[in-house]
Formats: sequence, structure tokens, C-alpha cells
Amino acid sequence: MSPLPPLAAIPHDLVAACDYEQRARAHLDDNAWAYLQGAAADELTAAANVDAFRRRRLLPRVLRDLRHGQTRCRLFGDEFEHPLLLAPLAYQRLFHPAGELASALAAGVMGGGMAVSTLATCMLEEIASQGQRPLWFQLYWQGERERSLALVRRAEAAGYRALVVTVDAPLSGIRNREQRAAFRLPPGIAAVNLDATPEISATAGGSPIFAGLMGLAPTWDDIAWLRARTRLPLLLKGILHVDDGRLARDLGADGIVVSNHGGRVLDTTPATLDLLPAFRAALGDRFTLLVDGGIRRGSDVFKAIAGGADAVMIGRPYAHALAVAGALGVAHLLKLLREELEACMALCGCADLASIDAGYLCPG
Amino acid sequence: MSPLPPLAAIPHDLVAACDYEQRARAHLDDNAWAYLQGAAADELTAAANVDAFRRRRLLPRVLRDLRHGQTRCRLFGDEFEHPLLLAPLAYQRLFHPAGELASALAAGVMGGGMAVSTLATCMLEEIASQGQRPLWFQLYWQGERERSLALVRRAEAAGYRALVVTVDAPLSGIRNREQRAAFRLPPGIAAVNLDATPEISATAGGSPIFAGLMGLAPTWDDIAWLRARTRLPLLLKGILHVDDGRLARDLGADGIVVSNHGGRVLDTTPATLDLLPAFRAALGDRFTLLVDGGIRRGSDVFKAIAGGADAVMIGRPYAHALAVAGALGVAHLLKLLREELEACMALCGCADLASIDAGYLCPG
Amino acid sequence: MSPLPPLAAIPHDLVAACDYEQRARAHLDDNAWAYLQGAAADELTAAANVDAFRRRRLLPRVLRDLRHGQTRCRLFGDEFEHPLLLAPLAYQRLFHPAGELASALAAGVMGGGMAVSTLATCMLEEIASQGQRPLWFQLYWQGERERSLALVRRAEAAGYRALVVTVDAPLSGIRNREQRAAFRLPPGIAAVNLDATPEISATAGGSPIFAGLMGLAPTWDDIAWLRARTRLPLLLKGILHVDDGRLARDLGADGIVVSNHGGRVLDTTPATLDLLPAFRAALGDRFTLLVDGGIRRGSDVFKAIAGGADAVMIGRPYAHALAVAGALGVAHLLKLLREELEACMALCGCADLASIDAGYLCPG
Amino acid sequence: MSPLPPLAAIPHDLVAACDYEQRARAHLDDNAWAYLQGAAADELTAAANVDAFRRRRLLPRVLRDLRHGQTRCRLFGDEFEHPLLLAPLAYQRLFHPAGELASALAAGVMGGGMAVSTLATCMLEEIASQGQRPLWFQLYWQGERERSLALVRRAEAAGYRALVVTVDAPLSGIRNREQRAAFRLPPGIAAVNLDATPEISATAGGSPIFAGLMGLAPTWDDIAWLRARTRLPLLLKGILHVDDGRLARDLGADGIVVSNHGGRVLDTTPATLDLLPAFRAALGDRFTLLVDGGIRRGSDVFKAIAGGADAVMIGRPYAHALAVAGALGVAHLLKLLREELEACMALCGCADLASIDAGYLCPG
Repeated sequence: MSPLPPLAAIPHDLVAACDYEQRARAHLDDNAWAYLQGAAADELTAAANVDAFRRRRLLPRVLRDLRHGQTRCRLFGDEFEHPLLLAPLAYQRLFHPAGELASALAAGVMGGGMAVSTLATCMLEEIASQGQRPLWFQLYWQGERERSLALVRRAEAAGYRALVVTVDAPLSGIRNREQRAAFRLPPGIAAVNLDATPEISATAGGSPIFAGLMGLAPTWDDIAWLRARTRLPLLLKGILHVDDGRLARDLGADGIVVSNHGGRVLDTTPATLDLLPAFRAALGDRFTLLVDGGIRRGSDVFKAIAGGADAVMIGRPYAHALAVAGALGVAHLLKLLREELEACMALCGCADLASIDAGYLCPG
Repeated sequence: MSPLPPLAAIPHDLVAACDYEQRARAHLDDNAWAYLQGAAADELTAAANVDAFRRRRLLPRVLRDLRHGQTRCRLFGDEFEHPLLLAPLAYQRLFHPAGELASALAAGVMGGGMAVSTLATCMLEEIASQGQRPLWFQLYWQGERERSLALVRRAEAAGYRALVVTVDAPLSGIRNREQRAAFRLPPGIAAVNLDATPEISATAGGSPIFAGLMGLAPTWDDIAWLRARTRLPLLLKGILHVDDGRLARDLGADGIVVSNHGGRVLDTTPATLDLLPAFRAALGDRFTLLVDGGIRRGSDVFKAIAGGADAVMIGRPYAHALAVAGALGVAHLLKLLREELEACMALCGCADLASIDAGYLCPG
Repeated sequence: MSPLPPLAAIPHDLVAACDYEQRARAHLDDNAWAYLQGAAADELTAAANVDAFRRRRLLPRVLRDLRHGQTRCRLFGDEFEHPLLLAPLAYQRLFHPAGELASALAAGVMGGGMAVSTLATCMLEEIASQGQRPLWFQLYWQGERERSLALVRRAEAAGYRALVVTVDAPLSGIRNREQRAAFRLPPGIAAVNLDATPEISATAGGSPIFAGLMGLAPTWDDIAWLRARTRLPLLLKGILHVDDGRLARDLGADGIVVSNHGGRVLDTTPATLDLLPAFRAALGDRFTLLVDGGIRRGSDVFKAIAGGADAVMIGRPYAHALAVAGALGVAHLLKLLREELEACMALCGCADLASIDAGYLCPG
Repeated sequence: MSPLPPLAAIPHDLVAACDYEQRARAHLDDNAWAYLQGAAADELTAAANVDAFRRRRLLPRVLRDLRHGQTRCRLFGDEFEHPLLLAPLAYQRLFHPAGELASALAAGVMGGGMAVSTLATCMLEEIASQGQRPLWFQLYWQGERERSLALVRRAEAAGYRALVVTVDAPLSGIRNREQRAAFRLPPGIAAVNLDATPEISATAGGSPIFAGLMGLAPTWDDIAWLRARTRLPLLLKGILHVDDGRLARDLGADGIVVSNHGGRVLDTTPATLDLLPAFRAALGDRFTLLVDGGIRRGSDVFKAIAGGADAVMIGRPYAHALAVAGALGVAHLLKLLREELEACMALCGCADLASIDAGYLCPG
């Protein structure tokens, strides 16, 4: 059965992110579905991310004056209407013909941000032209410093406002679901911003992973080199150990994204929500802390912020919405999540993001 | 398939609240069922409420003389035959043509109390005339102080004996199940005690939640204002944070209902049973503490009292009984729960409610 | 479909207690099955008993000399070949025409004990004549002291060697499964050792439970009175609180059975295994401690003893075996459990019951 | 339906050990399947082994230079390319006509080790000739010292490089699944390295377990006797209590395998992963510590080493691969696991096994 085309209007029973997930299946073929839903190995971390948010309990306060409540979020000098950013998902034309253009349009219309992937299927300059709000650029290290810097220079030139360097994926992870489905990019969908794939020059008989891929992976020295070469705010994405957070800060990064890559790279890493308080405690109040993985509700955004995040990224949920209804779907999903966040804030007694702290979470 | 009419006699296999729940499905249409069973978002708190009671373990004592045991409960000077009150469920004519009249009749016949909702579908004066026992009136804030007070004055005049102000629902919660079912009140069923819905006067472009609904929501100042204007015992319903309990007490409230609104307003709040001991410890022995959410057994009533409650409210279970067999069903349900409570007390070695304390609960 | 008759030979695939449970369904009608399998309310404690044994972890020792290992168990001066006693199940002719006679025969043949219920469906004198090993008599209080003592005198005269007074069932528990199945004793099956059911003389309008049943229930004074009138070893069965264990010991009881009545009386009491260590610590090494509830494996017997028990009682499992194959089935079940216990001892490095202690259990 | 013959090529969707397990069912008859998959009693420990690895969380480090990473493992002076050894599974011709010859060939080709079982279905000398890497010999005690030593002498002569004495199976465990399936060795499959089964000489009426099997079981004295008679490195396999680990070390053993025999001997023993840190702490850094049970992923190998193991053994997974595709399957499975281990090391920031420590595991 061939996938349904995207919808042109939102049915009344699409009322939450989980509805989009369920509905998306019919709009994607097996190949794209395996890529989107799959994660590393047994997909335990992908499930744990979601579960951590579901298990965490809120402790609301009542009877406060919240008439002037709002959800505005300031990041690196730019103001967003809410703290929901679209995570740098690769290959979005797998999900909808308009790909990243649709996502960026929706993010902008809804007053939020987006980090555009190195593996975007639209030109990064064209995506930038869609944005009504500042976009960020996500960098996958390109094997060599100068190749990597060239991409950064393009992003700077196109007006991207921050640089998110992914550090948790020197290899793409062993995604059994993709392997079993024999996933491959369909003709016409490609990482159009890259010239060619860097060559893996493993010495004969060496391990493809260590002698091959790891030879192309960035190190702390490479990040320091890059830090010295761009004035864009620099975030490292994919940090799970507090000591790596400290190294990032001390090296001059402006922020980190606490992330396990949606469980897509290494299975059985912890749910990101559970790690946030230790990061905030270690890194201080002024270091920018983002988180992704498992956010499916506005109350999840609230919990992430209560745990110490400044803002959150969502990933698969907006790919589901993109598949179902393109830019309209993504915008509607963002509207739902923002309304859920507002409702959660109103019901917890918080008039702005700065009011949300660990006191609204049940211990344990 | 159209719903079955209410039964006129109780079948022999209706022996517990869970039997009424199962049976009720056939007596309600999809619309009413979605309203009754639904809760906010993923309905995790609704499930957690029930689960907390199921998980809590009792530690009984044996061989005591319990010949003079009884379950009497004194609240604000009135005596009830047992500590089970009917919670203020809205729109009860959704479940049975006699609506709140049937529930009040059943509560009275069985020697228990009921809190009548602001959103009752029968006139509050007529409901009051059904009661053989004191009724309480539940107030939803009506946007303005005088509109709210007018309702209180009617309740006072009709002989209601206590006022329960719901403070956890400045907005009605995002109930996805209701949304998916496109729930609406059927013709002829309405909140007959209200003149009209207060208008939401959000400034243009403002958030419907913050600038709209929250402008109609009560604050601590409003509660203090109301406290000064009625001599009825005043309870605040929907408190989950101990500090809000203290604020309520210090402001002159006579009691609180520890409640998460049956999980219908904000999802992932804690199960109420787990919170009781901290409330009792903080508020002292003389402050009236009620609880609702998840009570399905007489042993649950026992556990709530052991945890620190003076009495409990039941919600959905009596709506199930109302749907199945009207006043007869509700009375039978109350009889079952009271018998289960008596059995639990007898088997635990407690001759009266005052004997029930935390020593009968397993730690942890 | 009418129940299958008992088997005359043991099929090769009946290799564990759980096999008997599964197989028993076909040998019992709905009425008997509801009685046997049912428990109080939601049957959570019945399940928790089993689960506690399954969750508890053993820490074995290796390479010890166990050539002279054995499972002998000495209780009140009598020696049994193993520490498995048949619990006092009522109405055993519900499960097999030979009822308690078959069970007592099997226990005796296998070198174990049995506590015969007050509600036996065979004459207690006749049951006593089956036993190759000492039998015990279980007493349900008969409303008045003299009626109760009369039963004890019959048991003494018939050669019963210990008295087990059940103290946790002043009422029989609200067993919803039985109620839904409209359970009743079939014609010809009755508590033949009792003259008649004591009358419940509740004052008009009084609670059937408090003013009725609890007026017939024994108290600590009654137990003390009984203690003074019999030289039989006296055990109280159905104690869950350590303080009641202390009261029993101080009053002159020789032992207790830590029991929740297989979950049949009050639901959501704790699993008995978890309570044992506190009882042993409180009552000292010389007080006899038995346990029942949830034992399905020889390793469960080992765990109970490691937790502090001197011996264990099994209940439903032998009723399953009785239904499947009468005395042969019960004997075979006891053989299986004893072999499992021997294997567990051999694999844990314990040559006798006295060697089994808490060191063989994983903490937590 | 008769079992499928082994495959001659690896299908593209066999990408993980769990795929082999699922696929293996079709290549084995019910008899072999019951033997392979079955474990003692309720098979709780077999499941717990796997679950412990799945629940344990990794805490990776990023941006390290890993170009020279490798997985080499040195054990008793021999170097292996990775720390995965094939555990001593009995009767491998049940799974594939080439039996242990195929397994040893695959282990050797992939640069890993294998412990050959006393109950091998091929001659141990012939198996030794397959190995490109050192093989170890697993000894089941043969009832008497000299019979046992004779086997050791054959292993020494055939070039086996270490001796693994299994100490947790003086009896083979009560495997209900095998019993229900009436498992028996098919004609032509036998423990060809043994002359005959030692006779069980239980005294009349004595317990078959204590007076029979335990009379043939080794004791610490026997192990000391053996230790004095061979210069091969000596490991004791099947130790779960730290005190037994100390006894082994003090007696002169060179290492232990923390193992519950894949849950096949005594059910409800703990998952082995959870025990490792205490063993490492008690036994010091220089004592060789191996572990088996539940390893299904390269990340499980990483976790075991982080917990304190020097290397790991896999059992059922390679029997699945053997059944599916013989030596090719086993080699492919080892390749998958090694690649997963490399990926895990690369993603956690570890360049060699010595870098892997408890800091990479989330506490609790």
C-alpha cells in the first residue's frame, strides 16, 4: 500500500503529538518509517527518553495571579515566543517533499527556532530565507578542519545565528531496524549541502571503526580550533557526562544540548531528563543548557525547564507532523505543544519560564 | 448501539465498584463515556491515583474486641454514618435522567454527604431538598467576586452546610479523549444554576490561557475576600503542595481536599494518597483534610484515613453506579464501600475511625 | 463441560506445582474453582505472595561436602521428613471425593504434616486414622469458649498433636470472585465436625460486621483462656504484625503462622515472605515460626527458612493436586517440592535446615 | 514440521544476536529447542541475566582521540583479538552436525577463545586441532579424582591452555521445560570424551540427591588436590558468592567465572552483571574475572568489563548462530558482537579494554 499524500487540513482528532505519530505511519513508506522511528540496537534509550517524562511528577501551586503570563524565551540575544526548537533532523525530504523548507517555515510562523542539519536535503541558504525567526546551523564534523569550517562560513553568510556541533555521533550508530529494513536514501534525496562523503582511509586490516571512522571524528582540540574561528554562539550537542559539560564550558562553548541523539547512536544511555539537574548544578545559571529526547507534551517542556534546561528541542514529533501535513502540520504541532506548555504553566502557577524551577517536580 | 436504560434492580454479580465501572459502559453513549472516563492528556495521573491505593500495603492487628465498632464521621459539627462523600461531579444528567437529585438522594439514604457541583444539571435548591443529610456546595469561581458570592448566598439560603472552592481548575484541562470524541453537552443538559458563561476578554493577540482564562481565575486575595463574607465552613479543593495547604489554613480555610481533580486537569501530578502524610504533619491534627482520586474499595478509605485524611470523596465510581441504576445504584455502591470499610476495620483491629493511623500501613 | 474425573496415574508433564494448577481447572467445576482460586477483593495479596518468592534472589555457596544432607524437620518433639505441612484448607471434598482423607494420607506417606481444618468435610477422628505422621488441628473459634473447647477436646482425643488457632478471619473476607460466581457448598458437602453455625445476634440496626460477626470473634482474653485449658502446643495462625507476634509469645503460645490467609480475607496485606526476618528478630530463635502463602517451589521453602521460618504450609497447590489425582496427586506434589528443596539445598551448599540462614538471600 | 537445514549464507536481516535467536527456532526440533532455551524451574534467572544488561545505563564521554583504539584482550599470557569467549556448552551436535568443531573453528577465525565442554560431542583432541587460537577445557568433575585428572591430562596433551572447572552443577538442575518436552539425547549424539556415566551409589532409602549425586560432587579439597596436579591456569566457573571467590583465590585458582550457568541449574539466583563490582573489589585487580549469562550485545560486553570483568563468555547466542548457519553463523555472530563492542567503545570514548571502568556506568 503506497503512502497517503500529506493532508491539506488538520482533522479534529489530531490533538496531541502522539496522534501525529500514529497517523504518520500511513503517510510514510517502510523505508522512511524505519529510518524515522528506528534507533540504535534494541531502542531502549529511545523508549526511556519518553518514559522519563511520563514518570516525572509535577507539584503544582494554586491561586496565583497569572494574567500576565507568557512563554517567551531568550537565547543568545534572540527572543523566541516559546522555548521549543526544532532539532536538527537529517534528510527531511524523506518525510515531505518540501523537507526542511516546510519545517523552517512552520518554526518561524510559530515564533520558534530550528537547528538546520548538515544533512539537510535543501540548500541551507534557501532554508534560511524561509525563517521569520533566527535559525541555527548544526554541524557534523567533515573529517578535516577546513572542510568543516567551510560549512560554518556558509552558515554565517546565510545568517544562521548559532552553531550546534554534534559530538555524540562519530559513527552513526548500529540501527538494527534500519538494517533489517535495508534502509537507503531514495533517488533524489541527498545531503545537498555537502560536496562528497569524506573518504575513510583505514590502514589495511585496521578496524573500520577505530582506524576508519574515528580518524574522521573531531576531538576537543578540533572544537577549540573551531571556537577560535567563529563568533557565532557555539553549542555542543550530545553530551551526557557532566565532566564533558565542564570541558565544553571551559573551552569556550556557549552552551550544550544534553542529548542521546534520540537513542539513535548508542543504546542504553540514560534518559536525558534525569541528567539535567546535575548539569545545571555543575555549569551554573548562565551557561545555556538545552535538552532533547522524549518530549511529547507541553508538560514535558515544563519538566525539562524545571530540571534546569533553558529550552528544548523536539525531533521525531515534528517529522511525524511534517509527514502528515507538511508545514501546516508542524505549525499545528508547535501550537499544540505551546498551548500545553501554557496550560501547564497556568496550572502550576508559573507566569514565565524563569519562574519554573525544581520545586515543581516531585523528588525521586 | 444505543445505551441501555438504567436497571431497576441490582444484579447479583455487581459486588464491587469495579463491576459498576465495567457495567456502566453499556449504559452510556460514547459522548458521555469520553467525558466521564477521560482525563487530561495521557491520563497517567488518573491511573496513578488508583494504582497508589492498590500498591499500598496494610498491616492488620488481630484479636481485639471490636463488638462496638462503627464508622461514624463528624465533619464541621455534622455527623455522617461513614466517611464517604460524593465528590462534586459536574453534569450528572449526562449519566442518568435524575442527575444530581438521584445522587443526593442516595447519599442521604446511606447516611453520607455530597458536595454539589456549581455545574450541576439540577437546581441546587431542589437538590438540597433531597438530602436527608447535610449537603455541601462546590464553587467554581465565576470570574468576578460578586457573581461568585451570589452563588454562595444561594447555597447558604438552600441550607448547604459547607463550601468547597475548587482551586485547581482555572482552565478545564486538555482532555484529549474528550477532544477526540468531540464531546459536547447534549441538548437539554446544562449548568442550570449559572446565568451565562463569563466572557473571556483577552486583549487582542494575547494568549487565550494567560490573558483570557487566567483573568477569570481566583487568587489567594479572592479567597480571603470570600472567607470574610461567609460563615460556612470553607474548604479549598485541589491542593497538592503542602505550602499551599499552609496558605489555606493561615488564610482561615477550615479544610482542604487533597485532590488532582481525578487527573482531569493536569496530567502527571502525583497520586493523592502518597501526599497525605506530609499534609497531616504540616497542618496539624485539627485541620480538616479530605482526599479524592482513585478510591475504589473500602480498604482505600481505610488507607486514606491511615494516611491522614478525615474523610474521602469518591467521584467516577458513583457516576458509574448512577449510570447503571440511578439512585439505587449509588446507594448500593455506597453500601458496598461502607461494608468493605467495616470489614477492613474489623480485620485490622480498628473500632472507629479515630483508631486508624499510620501504624496500619506498611512503610515504603 | 463437566469436570474431568481425577487421574489414576501421573502424566509425565506434571513436573511442578504450576502444572498442577493449570491442569486442575479441567477437574473442577466453576463453583469449586471460584472458591479455590478466589481471594479477597482484587486478589492483589494472593498474587503478591507468589511474586515475593519469585523476586527473592538466592546466593548459593559451592564445593561443600553434602553427602550427608537431609531435610528433616522437628516440630514440638515430632520429626517430619521435610518442612512442608499441608495448610488447613476447608471443604476439601469440593476438590476430590476423598477430601481430607486423601490429603492426610498423602502427607503421611510422604513423611510430612497436615493441619486439619475445623471446616473439614470428613470427621476429624477418621482423618486422624489416616495419618502415618502426627496431624495438627486447626480451630476456628466457635463463637463461645465452651463450644470452641469442645472441638479441642475432640482433637486431643483423636490424637492431634498441636492446635492451630486461626486469628485473622473473624469474618470470611469479601471474596468478589466467589460472589460473582454465586459460590455455595454443593449438597452433601459440609463442615461435618460442627453441630450448627453459631447464630449472629446483632442488635436491630447494628452493623452485621461489628455488632454481629465481631461478637463471635475471639479476643486475646479468649486465647489466654484456651491456652490455660490445653496442653497441646498452641499456634496462632494469621499474624502479620510483629507486635501481635510478641503478644502471642507472651501469652504462652508456642508458635505462630505468619499468614495472610492466602489473600482470602483482607486484600493488600503484605506478602508473608517479606515479613519473616522481623518476626524472627523479634521473637528469638526458640519460638516456632511457620509461614504460608505463595509457596510454589522447593526453593520457596528454602527462602522461607532462610527468612526465619522453621517450616512452611502449602495451601492451594495441594488442592490442585488433590483435584487432579487425589492422594496420589498430593503425594506426587509433595515429592516434587521436596526434591526441589533438596536440589536447592544441595546447590546452595546446605546439608540441613539448620544451615539455611539469611546469608543465602540477596539483600533488598 | 521438520527443522530447516543450516543456511550457507547469511541473510541481510540477521544483524544482531536476537535475530539469530528468533531464526534458530526454525532450525531446531522441539527436543533440541527445549534443551537449548530451557532453564531451571520458572526460568526467572535466565531472563534476569538478560534484563540486567538491558537495564544498566552507560554514561559516554565524547571528543577523545580514538584512532588507535582496539579490543585486544590478554588472558594467561595468550592474546585474543577481543574479550568474547565461547562458553562451554554441552552437546553441540544437537544444534549442528559439525558441533563443537564448527564453534571452535569460528572462534579461531574470529580471533577469540572457546572453552570446550566435558560434554562435547566431538573428541577434544579433534576440536583442539580446529583452533587458530588457544582453547580452554571445561571440566565436569567425574565422581572420582583420578577419573577427573585423566581428562585433564588429555586436555593438557591436546594443547588446551586453561582449565575451567564448573562448580555450580553437582546436579544438573530441575529443568521443567526439558522435562515437559521429555528431552533426551538423540541417537548418535553423546559425550564422546567420557567412558561411561559414573554410577550413583546411594545407600538404600537415601536421597538420590544427597546420598547419590552429592557423593560424586567435588569439594574444595578436590579442587586443591587438582590444583596441585596441573600447571594449567585454573578457573572455577559458577561462583556467585564473594566469599567463594576468596576461597578460590586463596586455594590457588587463577580466576573465576561469575556465572549462574545461564539460569539452568538453580533458579532465582541473581543476574551476574550485578555481582561483578563486589567480586572485583574483593579479589583485587590481578585476579582473572570472567562472567557469563545474558550477554546479547557488544554493549553488554562493555558493561561487564566496566563492572569488573576481564572478559566474557557467551552461551546460548552462539548455539543459535550454530543452528542457523554453522561455523559461518558463529563467526558472523562474533563479528557482530565485536563490531558492537567497538562501536560502544568508540562512542563511550575508550580506546582499549583497560580504559573501561565503572565511571562509564550510571550508578544504581
